[in-house]
Amino acid sequence: MEKKKISIIGAASISAAFIIKFIARHSGAEFAHVCSSSQAGKMVHEYHTFLKGIVDVEYEKYDFDTVINDSDIIFITAQHGVHLDETARIVKAAKEKGAKVIDLSADYRLKDASLYDKWYNVSHGHSDLLVDAVYGLTELNAHNIKDAQLLANPGCYPTCALLSLAPIVQEELTDGNIVINALSGVSGAGIRPSATNTAMKVCDNIFPYKVGGVHPHTAEIEQGINAYNPCSAEAPIGVTFVPHVAPFKYGIIETIYAHLAKDISESAIYDIYKKFYANSRFVNILEPGYLPEVKDVVGTNFVNIGFKIDPRTNTLIVIGCIDNVIKGAAGQAVQNMNIMCGFDEAEGLL
Amino acid sequence: MEKKKISIIGAASISAAFIIKFIARHSGAEFAHVCSSSQAGKMVHEYHTFLKGIVDVEYEKYDFDTVINDSDIIFITAQHGVHLDETARIVKAAKEKGAKVIDLSADYRLKDASLYDKWYNVSHGHSDLLVDAVYGLTELNAHNIKDAQLLANPGCYPTCALLSLAPIVQEELTDGNIVINALSGVSGAGIRPSATNTAMKVCDNIFPYKVGGVHPHTAEIEQGINAYNPCSAEAPIGVTFVPHVAPFKYGIIETIYAHLAKDISESAIYDIYKKFYANSRFVNILEPGYLPEVKDVVGTNFVNIGFKIDPRTNTLIVIGCIDNVIKGAAGQAVQNMNIMCGFDEAEGLL
Amino acid sequence: MEKKKISIIGAASISAAFIIKFIARHSGAEFAHVCSSSQAGKMVHEYHTFLKGIVDVEYEKYDFDTVINDSDIIFITAQHGVHLDETARIVKAAKEKGAKVIDLSADYRLKDASLYDKWYNVSHGHSDLLVDAVYGLTELNAHNIKDAQLLANPGCYPTCALLSLAPIVQEELTDGNIVINALSGVSGAGIRPSATNTAMKVCDNIFPYKVGGVHPHTAEIEQGINAYNPCSAEAPIGVTFVPHVAPFKYGIIETIYAHLAKDISESAIYDIYKKFYANSRFVNILEPGYLPEVKDVVGTNFVNIGFKIDPRTNTLIVIGCIDNVIKGAAGQAVQNMNIMCGFDEAEGLL
Amino acid sequence: MEKKKISIIGAASISAAFIIKFIARHSGAEFAHVCSSSQAGKMVHEYHTFLKGIVDVEYEKYDFDTVINDSDIIFITAQHGVHLDETARIVKAAKEKGAKVIDLSADYRLKDASLYDKWYNVSHGHSDLLVDAVYGLTELNAHNIKDAQLLANPGCYPTCALLSLAPIVQEELTDGNIVINALSGVSGAGIRPSATNTAMKVCDNIFPYKVGGVHPHTAEIEQGINAYNPCSAEAPIGVTFVPHVAPFKYGIIETIYAHLAKDISESAIYDIYKKFYANSRFVNILEPGYLPEVKDVVGTNFVNIGFKIDPRTNTLIVIGCIDNVIKGAAGQAVQNMNIMCGFDEAEGLL
Repeated sequence: MEKKKISIIGAASISAAFIIKFIARHSGAEFAHVCSSSQAGKMVHEYHTFLKGIVDVEYEKYDFDTVINDSDIIFITAQHGVHLDETARIVKAAKEKGAKVIDLSADYRLKDASLYDKWYNVSHGHSDLLVDAVYGLTELNAHNIKDAQLLANPGCYPTCALLSLAPIVQEELTDGNIVINALSGVSGAGIRPSATNTAMKVCDNIFPYKVGGVHPHTAEIEQGINAYNPCSAEAPIGVTFVPHVAPFKYGIIETIYAHLAKDISESAIYDIYKKFYANSRFVNILEPGYLPEVKDVVGTNFVNIGFKIDPRTNTLIVIGCIDNVIKGAAGQAVQNMNIMCGFDEAEGLL
Repeated sequence: MEKKKISIIGAASISAAFIIKFIARHSGAEFAHVCSSSQAGKMVHEYHTFLKGIVDVEYEKYDFDTVINDSDIIFITAQHGVHLDETARIVKAAKEKGAKVIDLSADYRLKDASLYDKWYNVSHGHSDLLVDAVYGLTELNAHNIKDAQLLANPGCYPTCALLSLAPIVQEELTDGNIVINALSGVSGAGIRPSATNTAMKVCDNIFPYKVGGVHPHTAEIEQGINAYNPCSAEAPIGVTFVPHVAPFKYGIIETIYAHLAKDISESAIYDIYKKFYANSRFVNILEPGYLPEVKDVVGTNFVNIGFKIDPRTNTLIVIGCIDNVIKGAAGQAVQNMNIMCGFDEAEGLL
Repeated sequence: MEKKKISIIGAASISAAFIIKFIARHSGAEFAHVCSSSQAGKMVHEYHTFLKGIVDVEYEKYDFDTVINDSDIIFITAQHGVHLDETARIVKAAKEKGAKVIDLSADYRLKDASLYDKWYNVSHGHSDLLVDAVYGLTELNAHNIKDAQLLANPGCYPTCALLSLAPIVQEELTDGNIVINALSGVSGAGIRPSATNTAMKVCDNIFPYKVGGVHPHTAEIEQGINAYNPCSAEAPIGVTFVPHVAPFKYGIIETIYAHLAKDISESAIYDIYKKFYANSRFVNILEPGYLPEVKDVVGTNFVNIGFKIDPRTNTLIVIGCIDNVIKGAAGQAVQNMNIMCGFDEAEGLL
Repeated sequence: MEKKKISIIGAASISAAFIIKFIARHSGAEFAHVCSSSQAGKMVHEYHTFLKGIVDVEYEKYDFDTVINDSDIIFITAQHGVHLDETARIVKAAKEKGAKVIDLSADYRLKDASLYDKWYNVSHGHSDLLVDAVYGLTELNAHNIKDAQLLANPGCYPTCALLSLAPIVQEELTDGNIVINALSGVSGAGIRPSATNTAMKVCDNIFPYKVGGVHPHTAEIEQGINAYNPCSAEAPIGVTFVPHVAPFKYGIIETIYAHLAKDISESAIYDIYKKFYANSRFVNILEPGYLPEVKDVVGTNFVNIGFKIDPRTNTLIVIGCIDNVIKGAAGQAVQNMNIMCGFDEAEGLL
């Protein structure tokens, strides 16, 4: 079988580096164009030095026509807003050619264009594409992903939150507001040096940021939760989401507090999760008595989910862990590509 | 003025090491006996090597009579329950002699003896002493600390939680259950090697433990909060408290979620905190717009407190940071000693 | 093709965990018996929790007969000396059956039995097997590895040192003593809790150990270097080797100081290295101007080697980096298995 | 006694932050002007947030006249070369007024002006001041420091190297070239975000830099060593110095390899060190059998020195540890100030 031709736009990012790593060991894919305006002319492994020996590809300047002509799958990683219009242009041209786009930015994740004004301070001119775009949280949306033309790859925090919450929201186990206390490794802040990603800031430290309902992943989480909420019309669920930076490079842990709406045992909750994720090979549900920790998922595409009831306050505490760059970005993007192309879901990811 | 004679029982612990460090640079105190059954005969700096050059004292075996005879202040650091009865014996003898006891264990922190059965699985035979013991959260209890015979030095998590919450509970700003998401450095797990404090377990990791209302600090936090709760009789406040171990040695951050009972601005809340802690030199209240982080308090006796309202869910998010071994144990113990002896509150601690 | 049957003895170790991970994704191998006396009855992923979702195998008690009967390849990981005689017994039985043994301990690495008395304080009763055993430093010994019956997998420090030094020793570029300053992640100290692997000891720290020519890897390095030293008879090369523990889990960096015996340019040295490793896919030689760093090899089977001349002292500084558990143990063991079984050298390792 | 008036120029640096901390708790000193062009108008604790509650001083723009008029001691922290001429101007004006200057930059450390061309690429126009400047390695130069007008505070690596080497060089224990393998915490790279001080670069990593005799501290180390070398005229000692960045914020460890010129026991070497540093309260010489580690000196002004002979190669391995920002910069600067002003050497530093 001919290999799928892969192009990557914005290929200097950390997420892109991991996509490159996964494609390099993928049995059914090969590189078409690896584009980065800032690194064009360099070898990929000169910039992302951990790829030396693994990949032997050169960064090119992005060119619309060559990318469209030569690619079956186009990954786009960009800061939200920056590439929004160009992505729309690519999607249209790709569709004609039979190619598909996987966008790792936030640009096409929200269904309601007005949310972009509010949360991203961006005026979104492509409402039609927002409707067509498929939200790529693999385990929750696999049947739509298969035929996506434009796949909006989820944010890291929402991936962890939604996988942790979907089963219990669907079962109406919780009422009212949900608290999500999240910690992420510093890779979430990118590799370009800034005041918030120096070692002097990050090491031996934990610091909160975007506290008070201002992190735009809040909107993505609420959109996703209410898709599973049977009462979303009359009683939409809101979340109080507080992210922090933790002193490691990779990983997210979310400790989620949901007041229980009914009496239920831990073993019954376990059964709900197991059933919900019966066919999800990248979801580990931990038996009652065990709880996830960051280190067990780092370097993998797995999400580990565990939980415990606090009977004194009738609160269900769900804890989810992912690697923010893999399941939270590049790994899930390749997982989605695998489904879109008919490969084994795990190809390149183990 | 003659220097106060200080003895320390259980002096191999991390908390004891910091007490030793603070006493070594204290202008009004000197060592009587530094007791450790496991390290007797060794120099302190042979075991706690970071004290080499700072202190030149030898560990002795603990002997009741010499400690009672030679000491003005007796610090006790022990696992809860282990030293409970002997502490009672020491307190009585010390009282006759005019000496005072500062107990860093949990043995005399709770007022209700039945709570020891429930939370510590210990049958507490000294209810009378529980009544007499003064809970040593310095900023909340300074007037009682002055004349304490037995001072029960607070736990690390409760110190951070209570300092963060007392002002808003007193003002009845919150209703219902409070969520406390806490992360502590690994020093909280002691220095004896165990499955939960190896570098392979702790580095690049965060893991929850004692989840679901089973950590005994929950009781200490609730006792302390309700002492400030004007409606504690009819509406006692409960907490959902989830501790985690974070990948650093020292420091605690608690992200606290309290639903607001009334409309209030951030500047009004700031004023409440500032007024409450107007005379507290080790409390830093951060202005609206700033939030605390672990690194700024490590190595100090300060607590840094900041907050933010999430207007979407009407939730007040308070964030408190302390050094778990200093303000959370040894530093606060010496701060209390300073008050009990009439020294400047900060002597030895800057 | 039928899959090779793999057994692992001592499978609770960190090295074994990584062998298990690599075998789990190996296209030509499957598990026969995964043996651990301490963990028998548990699932592998209950002990090595990072393998959950990756492998679904149970620990068994080691049984000589079933291992011999059911295995094509037997990996042994053990503390030196502990399993020495049993390994000899296994090798003999395996030979008759056509199976092969890969020993990750130090028990069969040194050719001269008397060195075991000196460096390991062990009286080695199997000199014959020491002769037959093939030293498994893949890139330096691939032609012998192919037909090994007993493969002695190298130590972590020697792997890095010998790969870094072999080309320049062979070319007689250096005279006299060589200084090897080595730092290893704490995984080298195992996962069983001990005074030297707690987070309180390791975090924010570097500490030397076994200084002064007492680390037994010194003997392994000298044996290996002199195998490449054309003048080993009249002028054997000695090394001053000082290991330290560094504050991370995985990785080794060795900074090696060799006085230059002749005038030579950096580009000439580069050519020597490139030629020497022309066919070695897991060796990255860095061009003059670039130097290796630990992070780029962690999680991989690569060794990265770079160098620089200090013209003021005429000293060649060679820097080598590996992942101590992968190229320094489990990865190289599987790489050797691949060669012994005729698989692609990199199978399971990318 | 009236307090000494302290001004600090370049007060946004990490070193300056620690000087500020030490002065804040100094019984005999107070702030005159704390100058930073980049932070002028901000409170010190707004920029160096760990100083909140400890110091209540505002950054000012640097003004020559007010600094000269109001100060007894002027600390200058700057990148080498940047402030060189202005420092000369300050020194002259200060001398007339009876004030003194402590320069933490490299600008006045080397005696030979031509070395500035070679190592710093700076044409040094103040040879006269180079002669007058007193090199402030406290323990090696206390008698000159007392009357210094311009004190050149040593570099971090040279401080550790020279304290570790001076006794054995003076005793002619070593011949020929000395290898210094050094690792420093990332604070040595400053707090301004750059490609070499991000958490993504530093965490879980060690990387060498300025390898091959190009780090200018090489010159400072050689100047210092040969001041103790009885044969410096005919046999000056050279060093091969390789610095690396280690994954922590504070601390330096130098593992030093010196070939022994004579037979000598470890206890005899111990006696040499003990005698040499008999009156040095910030030097800990570790008894044979013990070796220093980074964590024991972090946060202190101590240097810990230990050693071991490798009898196989007749190499003396000396290991020295300091806190790079304290004994390696700010602490030593205040220690020197204490000597220059007649205070207790340790005032403000314990």
